[in-house]
Amino acid sequence: MNRYAVYHMCGGTYAYATDKNTINVRIRTAKNDCTSVYVHYLNVYDHTSIRKIEKMDRILTDEYFDMYEAELMLRERHFKYFFELVKNDERVFYTGDGFMEKDIANENSFFFPVINDDEIYTYPKWAEGALVYQIFIDRFNSSQPKSYINAKWDKRPSREDFFGGDFAGIIEKLDYMRSLGTDVIYLGPVFSSRTNHKYDIEDYYSIDEMFGDEQGLAGLVTAIHDKGMRIILDCVFNHMSCYNPIFMDIVEKGQASEYKDWFFIYDYPVEIGKSNYDTFAGCVPSMPRINTANEKAIDYLVDSAVYWTKKLGIDGWRLDVADEVSVSLWKKFRKEIQKANSEVLVIGEIWNDAAKWMNGDQMHTVTNYKYRKWLLDCIQGMIGPDKFWDRISSNSMLYKTPSYGYLINLLGSHDTVRLSSMIGIEKARLALLTTIAFQGMCLIYYGDEIGMEGAEDPDNRRTMQWDGITSDMYDYIHEISILRNEYPALKHGQLIPLKSDKKLLAFERKLDDQILEVYVNYSDEECFIEKRNAIFMYSAEKNISHTEKTGIDRIGPLAFAICIKI
Amino acid sequence: MNRYAVYHMCGGTYAYATDKNTINVRIRTAKNDCTSVYVHYLNVYDHTSIRKIEKMDRILTDEYFDMYEAELMLRERHFKYFFELVKNDERVFYTGDGFMEKDIANENSFFFPVINDDEIYTYPKWAEGALVYQIFIDRFNSSQPKSYINAKWDKRPSREDFFGGDFAGIIEKLDYMRSLGTDVIYLGPVFSSRTNHKYDIEDYYSIDEMFGDEQGLAGLVTAIHDKGMRIILDCVFNHMSCYNPIFMDIVEKGQASEYKDWFFIYDYPVEIGKSNYDTFAGCVPSMPRINTANEKAIDYLVDSAVYWTKKLGIDGWRLDVADEVSVSLWKKFRKEIQKANSEVLVIGEIWNDAAKWMNGDQMHTVTNYKYRKWLLDCIQGMIGPDKFWDRISSNSMLYKTPSYGYLINLLGSHDTVRLSSMIGIEKARLALLTTIAFQGMCLIYYGDEIGMEGAEDPDNRRTMQWDGITSDMYDYIHEISILRNEYPALKHGQLIPLKSDKKLLAFERKLDDQILEVYVNYSDEECFIEKRNAIFMYSAEKNISHTEKTGIDRIGPLAFAICIKI
Repeated sequence: MNRYAVYHMCGGTYAYATDKNTINVRIRTAKNDCTSVYVHYLNVYDHTSIRKIEKMDRILTDEYFDMYEAELMLRERHFKYFFELVKNDERVFYTGDGFMEKDIANENSFFFPVINDDEIYTYPKWAEGALVYQIFIDRFNSSQPKSYINAKWDKRPSREDFFGGDFAGIIEKLDYMRSLGTDVIYLGPVFSSRTNHKYDIEDYYSIDEMFGDEQGLAGLVTAIHDKGMRIILDCVFNHMSCYNPIFMDIVEKGQASEYKDWFFIYDYPVEIGKSNYDTFAGCVPSMPRINTANEKAIDYLVDSAVYWTKKLGIDGWRLDVADEVSVSLWKKFRKEIQKANSEVLVIGEIWNDAAKWMNGDQMHTVTNYKYRKWLLDCIQGMIGPDKFWDRISSNSMLYKTPSYGYLINLLGSHDTVRLSSMIGIEKARLALLTTIAFQGMCLIYYGDEIGMEGAEDPDNRRTMQWDGITSDMYDYIHEISILRNEYPALKHGQLIPLKSDKKLLAFERKLDDQILEVYVNYSDEECFIEKRNAIFMYSAEKNISHTEKTGIDRIGPLAFAICIKI
Repeated sequence: MNRYAVYHMCGGTYAYATDKNTINVRIRTAKNDCTSVYVHYLNVYDHTSIRKIEKMDRILTDEYFDMYEAELMLRERHFKYFFELVKNDERVFYTGDGFMEKDIANENSFFFPVINDDEIYTYPKWAEGALVYQIFIDRFNSSQPKSYINAKWDKRPSREDFFGGDFAGIIEKLDYMRSLGTDVIYLGPVFSSRTNHKYDIEDYYSIDEMFGDEQGLAGLVTAIHDKGMRIILDCVFNHMSCYNPIFMDIVEKGQASEYKDWFFIYDYPVEIGKSNYDTFAGCVPSMPRINTANEKAIDYLVDSAVYWTKKLGIDGWRLDVADEVSVSLWKKFRKEIQKANSEVLVIGEIWNDAAKWMNGDQMHTVTNYKYRKWLLDCIQGMIGPDKFWDRISSNSMLYKTPSYGYLINLLGSHDTVRLSSMIGIEKARLALLTTIAFQGMCLIYYGDEIGMEGAEDPDNRRTMQWDGITSDMYDYIHEISILRNEYPALKHGQLIPLKSDKKLLAFERKLDDQILEVYVNYSDEECFIEKRNAIFMYSAEKNISHTEKTGIDRIGPLAFAICIKI
């Protein structure tokens, strides 16, 4: 047995509580090394050796490792446990004191001393597998002419352009979004700011007038809720506008300002031109970076989100630059925002390993940009399906199993080159369908669903091309959305990678007895599969999508199918 | 290269901040596998590939693994990094996207997005390497006769006995403790309670009258401080007395009690005899377990510790059953108690892997009972020095490097069989000297220093045998204490295990240029070493201890020496 590969820790993703009486434990072994793995466990205060034994499931495999998992249930909530690793005739125990061959005493166990109610890892169930539609407000839909508009709707945007998109414009398009299967609408920042993106907030306690002020937003929230959807706002706490009166107070009063410890000031007097203070990314003077470990700043910022959550009935928050804001702030945020709305969803903008922020007391989930990278690499043929699944599994190993249905899989955002500009519209459609059928939440950046193009910021923030919406565009996303409601496995099911040919990405979604198979042929050649009933098919070649039940045994070039066994 | 053994995570002990601009990163490899290891790093917002490179130090080795470490410093505080592993001619990079042979892009890095001030891992420096003397108050020293005393001083204790030890009695013995080298006096619970141990508190806001009430404790604190020592109190938040008015309120009022959610009540009416509520260890009806995730309970309990810290000038707290109290409580505790005393020390009573509680926002350190187990196993000849060092290294790998000088190494407490009863007085002395010379804080349970005997509770709580203190007893502990002040390496130095013969435990304590070697011969035969100058020697055989500088090349049976190179 490969002992070097064996890993367990009493915490993190390796041991955590999922309800009052249950913990989930994991152990990592070398890939295909063990033939079976067990966990032995007992109440901490039980000094007998009459232990319960649970066979562990192999839930993930990547290039080097297998991950095994089991749920342990004890009414008493006090757990001690150790593992039994079996490889054919070889048997070894992995304990809190390392590897042992025999005579394991209770004191050699790993200990999970108790489950306290504040450590139970939970999610707002409504969000599992939900489809999120991201709107860059100024560019989505303008309900009426406005004096500040300085660019025509079809112009390529510069950083200074205002196109007039507003809350009332969004209301006009709710049916469109609903028909795409949208469960959640996520708006960019809505608070007062002089820029078009509003990621530099001038007043956390007022809604931007350009977009339609507080009344407009309240109306939008009501309309979204009336259509059975939810609303998520953007929470920008890493930095604020240099024109925010809080920062201006320091510019004016210097060290006498009561806000001087809310920022990182290098020297006085503070000058915006001189940029003698820390900023977003270290190089954006208009966005002074907030000292989010400062308790007064924390209270002020958290209170603002709580205020709007209660006042407007906000369903969730997307946390901008979440990995640079202090953990003290996010812990307070999670606690207070859940008091305001017990079903709230908290999403962190984090591009890399986010395990540190997903321990149950900060974010529920994060923007899974790694998924984007690997799917695009795969669809572009830079990596094969095997490597794709290895990478996805390695990424999943970072997170707790209950989070898998909530990871925000996305193919683009206001911070990336547009999907269609990366891989062309045919492959973009494949990628979008794959993401909708994947385990996790799917985020669609407005316009990606109609193949809008765009290079880096500001070009990725072009106005929505409402002329581009054709009926065959609706067809495939609309149909797969109907399927997501018909087949709960597509929203809530486990994902199991299937072994497949060179350029065929294949996986199963499984929920109890419901098993769907998804095939994505991203090559230029036909791929063969075992005969299946296709309940959804999209083919770039034939330009079709349909949901009839059809027996198939091949998937054409750049085609996508969801199948059930015949 | 053994890729299965390679482990790094962006957090925990593998990546943490040690000051405003510095992070400490670690990577684990297979034992003796790599010939050198480097870390490449860069500011997150630097998009060039001009990276800094740091050679990593091998800081720990256990049975299977090496641990490498480096400090990375960036004024900008935003870090991305990846590792370069070299094994002779073989070179591989370990990145956020796994192993890569070449062409590492910045986006493949591991990310430590920023150091916020609330995440810097710190310690009260006064506590490093300190010697702690633990007192079970009722059994230590009685200043005067009392009406409640029901047992003669020399009687073997039962669970119901009261011997009359008190604060004034402790004051009488401060010089004794100081002469032992005591830096910190740790008292068992001092709050009002009807039992002798007082681990079931009836009023968190009053000091027990039997011990001499608040005035007595205030006098003791002043006297301790006057002698240049510190005081640590016992914090019992996992459970309270069933006679505490808070719990009695539920017994009386049932569900109408405002405190009903402060406990885990199974059904009403609550009856102490029936024990229809959760208790300490699930089986002690007199100690109902507190719901320490309840916010009101948290505030009440934390406030009590803050109150006494401020009012009496308490230097630290030892947290009883720390691993069963909620993390919410400890996080609030750490924050508030540090506001009351910025130099406070927080010690958790945790018997096993305590990594989960030592991330900088709960406990500074924990009771290192694993050290006790392995040292006793070693001194009893059940494991050799190699295995001992493997176990110590495995344990150290769980914790961050700055914590090593603070781990509470102990050989006994009010919860264990007495040291001398485990291994006999000669070996007990060896073990005690070893622990004083070891890296970490050393906790001495009152009376262990004079070889007091005692089986399980209540026998391990016998009264202090003041007659047993002889001059030769002082000699060796007193002398080694003087050395600890003369040679800072003994308090603050790094510990480096030395390869040694079968029954010789040998290690180095190193601080800058100061290097001391410690030899512990726990066998019955003489052991040879390279010729050294012994600056301290204890020999059971010859019943001697001295601090003259003597050239030696052999260590007698059951002897202990601290040496410097000739």
